Order: sequence, then C-alpha cells, then structure tokens
Amino acid sequence: MTWRFSLRTRLIMNRLIITAFFLASAAPALSQQSTASLPPPVLVDPNVAALRDDALEGDHYAWDVVEGLTTEVGQRLAATDAEARAREWGVQKLKTMGFSNVHIEPFTMPVWTRGAESAEIVSPFPQKLAVAALGYSGSTSPAGVTGEIVYFDSVDALRAAPDSAVKGRIVFIDHHMMPAQDGSGYGQFGAPRRQGPTIASRKGALAIVIRSIGTDHHRNPHTGVQYFTDGATPIPAGALAVPDAEQLVRILKRGKPVTMHLTLVSQRSEGARSGNVIAEVPGRDPKAPVILIGGHLDSWDLATGAIDDASGVAITTAAARHIMDAGRPLRTIRIVWFGAEEPGGLGGKAYAEAHGKEPHAIAAESDFGADRIWRFSSQLMKTDPPTYAQLTAALAPLGITKNDNGDADGTDVEPTVAAGAPWISLNQDGTRYFDWHHTPDDTLDKIDPAQLRQNVAAWTAMLAILSGGIESGPKQLKRR
Amino acid sequence: MTWRFSLRTRLIMNRLIITAFFLASAAPALSQQSTASLPPPVLVDPNVAALRDDALEGDHYAWDVVEGLTTEVGQRLAATDAEARAREWGVQKLKTMGFSNVHIEPFTMPVWTRGAESAEIVSPFPQKLAVAALGYSGSTSPAGVTGEIVYFDSVDALRAAPDSAVKGRIVFIDHHMMPAQDGSGYGQFGAPRRQGPTIASRKGALAIVIRSIGTDHHRNPHTGVQYFTDGATPIPAGALAVPDAEQLVRILKRGKPVTMHLTLVSQRSEGARSGNVIAEVPGRDPKAPVILIGGHLDSWDLATGAIDDASGVAITTAAARHIMDAGRPLRTIRIVWFGAEEPGGLGGKAYAEAHGKEPHAIAAESDFGADRIWRFSSQLMKTDPPTYAQLTAALAPLGITKNDNGDADGTDVEPTVAAGAPWISLNQDGTRYFDWHHTPDDTLDKIDPAQLRQNVAAWTAMLAILSGGIESGPKQLKRR
Repeated sequence: MTWRFSLRTRLIMNRLIITAFFLASAAPALSQQSTASLPPPVLVDPNVAALRDDALEGDHYAWDVVEGLTTEVGQRLAATDAEARAREWGVQKLKTMGFSNVHIEPFTMPVWTRGAESAEIVSPFPQKLAVAALGYSGSTSPAGVTGEIVYFDSVDALRAAPDSAVKGRIVFIDHHMMPAQDGSGYGQFGAPRRQGPTIASRKGALAIVIRSIGTDHHRNPHTGVQYFTDGATPIPAGALAVPDAEQLVRILKRGKPVTMHLTLVSQRSEGARSGNVIAEVPGRDPKAPVILIGGHLDSWDLATGAIDDASGVAITTAAARHIMDAGRPLRTIRIVWFGAEEPGGLGGKAYAEAHGKEPHAIAAESDFGADRIWRFSSQLMKTDPPTYAQLTAALAPLGITKNDNGDADGTDVEPTVAAGAPWISLNQDGTRYFDWHHTPDDTLDKIDPAQLRQNVAAWTAMLAILSGGIESGPKQLKRR
Repeated sequence: MTWRFSLRTRLIMNRLIITAFFLASAAPALSQQSTASLPPPVLVDPNVAALRDDALEGDHYAWDVVEGLTTEVGQRLAATDAEARAREWGVQKLKTMGFSNVHIEPFTMPVWTRGAESAEIVSPFPQKLAVAALGYSGSTSPAGVTGEIVYFDSVDALRAAPDSAVKGRIVFIDHHMMPAQDGSGYGQFGAPRRQGPTIASRKGALAIVIRSIGTDHHRNPHTGVQYFTDGATPIPAGALAVPDAEQLVRILKRGKPVTMHLTLVSQRSEGARSGNVIAEVPGRDPKAPVILIGGHLDSWDLATGAIDDASGVAITTAAARHIMDAGRPLRTIRIVWFGAEEPGGLGGKAYAEAHGKEPHAIAAESDFGADRIWRFSSQLMKTDPPTYAQLTAALAPLGITKNDNGDADGTDVEPTVAAGAPWISLNQDGTRYFDWHHTPDDTLDKIDPAQLRQNVAAWTAMLAILSGGIESGPKQLKRR
C-alpha cells in the first residue's frame, strides 16, 4: 500500500489555502464576523495523523536511546574517550535499529578536562561553597589561589569598573535570571559566563566566579563554555551554585572584606578527536534534497546529559525510525548525532563544511530538553505556506501552536542553515530546562516519558509531511 | 496592663469544656444532629490571638536567627570548631535579643569528620556516581577500595543472604521511600542507613553504599548517622544520591558483574567538645515548672543546616521573644539550642542528665524544617483537656488540626519527656523535608518566610497559653 498526498489533493489544498491566506489578510474584520469568509479547512492526512498518534501513544524508541546512552555511556565530554565510546555506542545502536549508511565523520579539536575544584570563604565567615569550572577555564595550581572578592551585579558593571578595582582580586558577577518558557533569559543572563572571564582577565583579575546561569536552587553549579578573546590571558573561571552565590551576596552585604580560596584545576591539550555519527533512512529519490535532523551526542562532564542532549538524539532518531517503520519516504532522512556541540558547535561546523553545499529540504535539531513541544516556527511560513498550514494542522492536536515570528534555532544546524538550508524549529517548553542545564542534575530521571513521546509524535508528523510521502515496502509494518 | 486568663473565666471555661467533653462522648449521634447539644464554644483569649496574629504578620526574629546563623556560621558539624563558633554566635545573639541566664553547658563526645570521597563504576560502564559517607563510617585509605556490587532491595534481603554472597563485596541496598506529609517513611525506609552497615560488616562486606534516604532526584547524597553495633567492625559506608542509585540499578539490570571503586576517607577521635546553649525568659514565679523549648544548633557538614535545624532554634527563640515583648510570663520559658543532635541526640541527653529532674510544665522542640505546622498533639489531651481545647481553638485559625493520636516527638526532648515532662508536638508539613534533609541542599533558600512566620505564630500562641498569663512590665511593648 502506498500512502502519500496525491498530487491532485495537494494542488487543490494549496490553492484553497493560498486563497484563504489572501482573503484573511485582506479582510480580517470580516473573517472574524462571518463564517462564510473563514479560510477553507486544512485537513490532516489520516496517515500522518495515525503515525503521529501511534508515536504519541506507544513510542519506545526514544526512551531506549536516551536510557541506553545515559546508562551505558554516561557523561561524554567532547573529544574525550567517553565521547569516543558514545560514538561507538551510537554506531552500534543505529545499525541495530536498521538505519543505512551508518558512519562516523571525525574531526580534531582542543580538549579541556576538569580536575580538582573547590571554593571556600576564608574570612569573615569560613565555609565551603559549591563551584565548578567553566569550559576552557584557566587552571590554578593544585594549591589554589586566594583573593578578595569584588562584586558586580552585571557584566556591564564589571566593564565600567576601573582596572584598579579588579586587579589582583577575584571578580564575582551576580545576575537574576528567571525561568521562561522560551528560554529567552539565557541570551541576556548568559553574558556573565560568556563575556565575564575575558573582561575580568583584561582588567587584571586573579580569577572570576559567577552566579551559575541557572534558575534552580540546588547546590549544583552550572558549567558551560566560554572563550578568552581579545588577547585575554586565561584565568581561573568558575560558576557558584545558585544557593552559594546567594550566600556570598549575603556575606558581602555584611560589609566586611570577603576573602575566597579558589582551586580550579584543569587541563587543556590540542589535536584531540571528536566526530559526528551519521545514519540515514534512504529516500526513494536519491537526488531529492535530504532532510537533516539530529541532536548532539556530547555532553558536559558533570552528568549523563539526559536532557542535553541525549533526549535530542533520541527524539529525532525515534521519529526517523517511525517513518522507516511505515515505509520508504520520498526524500532521504539524514540523522546526525553531532559531536562537540558544548565547546562551541564544532560538530555542526564540521557537518556544514562537509555537506553544507548539498541540497537540503529542511534542517532541524532538537536541543532543548525533553519537555513537551509547545510551538513551532519555520521558514516554510514564507516559502511554502500550504505546507506550513499542513504542519500547523498536524501539530495542533499535540497542543503545539504556530509561531509566525520564530527564528532558526540550534547551534548544530546553524552553519547548514547559513549555507542555505530551509529550517524548522520545534520548540520545547523550557520552563524547567535551566534548572538542570549543564549541572550534575542533568540525569535520566528529569525526563518525563509522556512528554518525550509527545516530542517524538511531533517530529514524526513533521517528517511524515516533509519527507514527501511514504511508500510502504514489501515488509509488514513493524512499529513496536 | 495585665492580661491573662482570669481565674473565674478559666474555671467557667473548664467546667463548660469538661461538661461538653462528657456530653460529646456520651451522645455523639445526638450532638451531630442537634445544635442544642453541641459543646459550648471555646473562645480564644483576645490577647493570645493578637500575639499570634502579630507574629504571623510581622515576625522577623526567626528570619534574623536562621539567616544569621546559616550565613555567619554556615555548617556546624557536632563537636567541631564550626559548632563551637555557632555556640559563641548563639550566646551573642541570645544576649542581644535580651534573654536572661544565657550560658553554655558543655559536654564531651567523639568527633567524626569527612575527608575525600568518590565513587565510580569501573565496569561494565565506567562513570562517576555522587556519594557521601554516612556518619561514623569506617575510612578507606586515600586510594580507596574496589569491589563487586551485590544488590539487595531491603535490609531484610541483606539479612537473609548467606555470608558468602556478601563477603569481600560492596553491598548496595535499595529502597523506595516516597514523600509523606508526616514524614512517616523515615522510620521504615531509614533502616538501610541505620542497620545496613552493621549487618553488611558482620557478613564480611568490603563496604556498603545505600540509596540515599531521601525523596528527591538531585545529585546530592543524604548523609546521616549510623553506628556499628553488635561488635561489628567499622567498614566504609556511604549513600549514593537518588539519581545515582537509580543509575546503578539500571546498570545492574544489564546482568553483567558491576565493579565499583569507592573512596570514603574520614577521621574519628574521642574527647571532643560540644555543648548546649541555654537562655531564659524568666517567669514571675521562679518556682513554677519551666517550659522547655528549642531546636538543635548542630548540623550535618554538607550544608548550612537551614531546615535542620537552624529554623527550629529560630522559630522557638522568636516565639519566646514575642512573649517577652508582651511582658513577663508566669512560668519561665527556657530555650535550649541543643548541641550534637545529629550524631545521636547527645545534647538532649546532656540536658536531661543536668535538668531532667527539675519540674517541667511542658517540653517541646522544633526539628522538622520550616514548612507550615499542619497539626499538633499533646499529652495535655488526657491530662488537661480544657487547655488542650484552648490550644486547639487558638491554633485552628493557622490551619492547624488537633491530632488525638499523636505522640511525643523529637530526639532532643525525648530524654526529658522520658524523665516525666509533659509534651506537646507542633508538627510541620514534611512533604518536602526529605528532599533536602542531610544533603548539600539544606540551605536558606529552602525556607519560605511566610511559612516560617506561621510556625512562629503557632509557637507564640502555644507559649502564650501555657506560660500561665503574661504581665506587661513597665516598658512599652516592643514587638519589632
């Protein structure tokens, strides 16, 4: 049995939708008042709906991947042996799942690894604080450094300070990031982590600690990448857990000089190896532009990276497998488990260098946890309104809203999108995401299996629509 | 102005209440059907209500104490320098707050302190797990020990196992504690921590790790005390964070032998010093039995002990201060900040040895966090029903229910209660308590100021009723 949108049906639908589009634009007041002027209905292909609903109800592929990867590999810091084990695990898993053309595309990069780390207030109130080094932090000696804390409530306050206020001291940058469904605080409030170390270094700071870029109140610091730019010498750079940063603020408010002893040992070396793991669901038309989906395989070293981003590789891989179970899509679906995203999207850049000039039908990644998808956006809104309308209709039963003002999203597909690939973003609810992001708490228990299945259902529906119609093969459908 | 329950009023009330008590017992069906047969109303003394409501609305004493102690001292492990600093801080604070007879009553005890600790799976899936030693754990060498994990789902399963299944291995005990409002799971599910190490040692185990006795999913292990009894040799004994225990279970379910490398360094020495900090609100009648209230000053070493038990000393001290602000009670209110509760209630025992034979009007402690009080129980239900009825009426507007089946509660007052003191227990809601109990997460941010004030209001009402009437002094009321 073949099922796909018949050409005739699509043409009729497109015409109706385009007509409706213009009607609605031209006479919005009228369209709200008279049912006669409503746009014609957009109906979801029953086969798309069935695939979506099967995934929603019974997907186990995603759980198998996220549970397996986090249990059998655990943390998988970029360019380490652990990440190499993760690639081997991925190749094995993707082959077992029946995907084609499974292979690794390697690249080299500098590797940074964490050593001993601790922070303690020496005076006026001796006590330990929970700290973790930021990626590519400079290293202290094993004995650590001791210095007076100088407080700034923002990166701009640090930037405005005279060098004399900073020189030889340990800079502390505070902020007030709060949870947001779209995660929008991360850009603005992430500045202390991304820019703080360089600015502090250039002003002669001994070291820097920031309030973790996170929205929780647990004693688990949030690490994350930063680079020393503008010729800044690497200095020790760490994040205090949120409760510890608040404790430091309370201590500073007593008005006495605060001295901290800080140990942040780390190692950096060049020429280490990472790579992307790639697999495909071959399309019936090998010349048709491919559909690129995926997440990133590497994680930070503090946890098993369940939400960042084992769930992303799991969701996208599961969706591809549901398409494969249903038959052969017209377009090839290419799954990429990107390497070394956390240190700066190196896997995404390597992919774009190797494949960016190949034609892509769409590029999409999942890298924002495993909570439910609440909205989506796509370039197709402008370039292919009928398909955008179909996506809107197919995702609505999952509670997903279209976002006409959305943007391309995702470090790993960004270089490919920059090279010309159209994009679609399925946005997960990020309300809880920055409670766990880059902390020891990013573990499997944070994933809600029901919400994970909703993700898989959305991705399956999206692939069913964009892959150009699925033709069932000679085999029986095997969905479970 | 003097305000207290007039003798006449009390006699009338008591008679009415006692009559009602018997009526209600004799004819419950009737009393439910006819308003004529309902017990007479129990009215709350307006002065008690005013003190209670002032505390509910505006108490800041409790926050001052809990914020100050956790910020300026931080962790204060029993019998360490940190606990000594906490005692000095307490003496200073209690004097500043205007209490009388502020002093320390010292005692000696063994001290146990934590060194380096780590746990990692060596095979089949190399990865680190979050671990913390239990109190009075045996110590490994700095190099640690390596052994095969043997799994038990309960202490009884370990007890039933042949020695040969355990000998030379690392015992792992699992359990399934869930949150409960009354914290009732702690008794049953705490057995792996309290008894597991001794049983494992006697069967020849190399070491033991348990699933933390906790209800959260954070990478923060729950420590807690255990003793090696029955002649058992101390062995290294640790708690895995709940996500790590679940990870270990998943790894074990793969069916391959699991090897763990465990480092749990600790030190123990005898003859260290702890002590109770004592202060009083002197009563007008120095010969009247005293009212004993308090919490414990020491904490575990992993956090600042905000809910365990800086909040308990803060709540009880604040309530006493509200009474003092209103005037002089008939009975002396004695506040004790008990030392060394965590290692086994040593401060409570020391207090009972010194003061257990003195007459006590009531003994009560706060040691279950700072969430709202939801019910209370007291021996007075049987010995003094009119006062029990007054307490019931005065606490009801705070949402507090009487619990006729309650029991004396609290490690620190237990020896004094055993020596004959009547008791009252104001039970806090424990639903969240075991998320943070004995972990690095027991920090100030876990305290909700509004719920803290509700605690103070309840304790203030209780003291106002039980302290025998408050006579205002020559000074103006100073409540803030």
